[in-house]
Amino acid sequence: MQQQVHFITLATADLDAARRFYRDGLGWEPLVDVPGEIVFFQVAPGTVLGLFDAEKFGRDLGGTGAPGVSGVTLSHNVGGPREVEETVALMAAAGGTVLKAPRQGEFGEVFHAHARVPNGVVWEVARHPGWLVAEDGRAVLG
Amino acid sequence: MQQQVHFITLATADLDAARRFYRDGLGWEPLVDVPGEIVFFQVAPGTVLGLFDAEKFGRDLGGTGAPGVSGVTLSHNVGGPREVEETVALMAAAGGTVLKAPRQGEFGEVFHAHARVPNGVVWEVARHPGWLVAEDGRAVLG
Repeated sequence: MQQQVHFITLATADLDAARRFYRDGLGWEPLVDVPGEIVFFQVAPGTVLGLFDAEKFGRDLGGTGAPGVSGVTLSHNVGGPREVEETVALMAAAGGTVLKAPRQGEFGEVFHAHARVPNGVVWEVARHPGWLVAEDGRAVLG
Repeated sequence: MQQQVHFITLATADLDAARRFYRDGLGWEPLVDVPGEIVFFQVAPGTVLGLFDAEKFGRDLGGTGAPGVSGVTLSHNVGGPREVEETVALMAAAGGTVLKAPRQGEFGEVFHAHARVPNGVVWEVARHPGWLVAEDGRAVLG
């Protein structure tokens, strides 16, 4: 089995609010947008983030509930503490709620912040001194 | 802000069970493995999946709980229905629980299955006829 995530799909209670956050707030460009159902954003080579109407997400999984998102964070890495602060400020201006203001993290040498964004998922914005991506796309954690 | 997810981090109640599932069951190679804390697997160019001890995940987010994972699916796409069946069988043999046996999906033209794997996240294994990745890593959803 190939070691690859192709889609990250998040149950999304308010799809219009989530679209506004990513598209209008962060300036991301949708790959596909099906109003009332799902919005896709490419977030890595070959990998797509799908914001899926929570009721339809529940049906697709064979249940009837409309779950929130918990137990997951998505991270965006930047080059330094100043960029952590700027990116979290952008997320807050776009409608996110800062859960942890930029600070030195408890694990590793990370400097980071957490924000809950309108579809309920928690984003981490981080500077990892030991993290880099090689030219071939290989991640390195040192 | 660059349109990129660098880490997908999942609260993981039983890290040893999760490691066995991905490493021994699926044959994935850890990027970094810190027993009792976190296991990282690269899952796309520049993108890493982190299985993070649930109690430490909760602390990192400033809470005290040990959340399960809900409201998210990760998808692995394959070329046809036969490969969907083979990959879900591999996941079941590795300790996953099949929630939806391979079948035509309710949304789009997808043929797919869902399995809950030992860290609690639900994986979808899917064949999307309209999905492909261009040579430059651009995802196409047709």
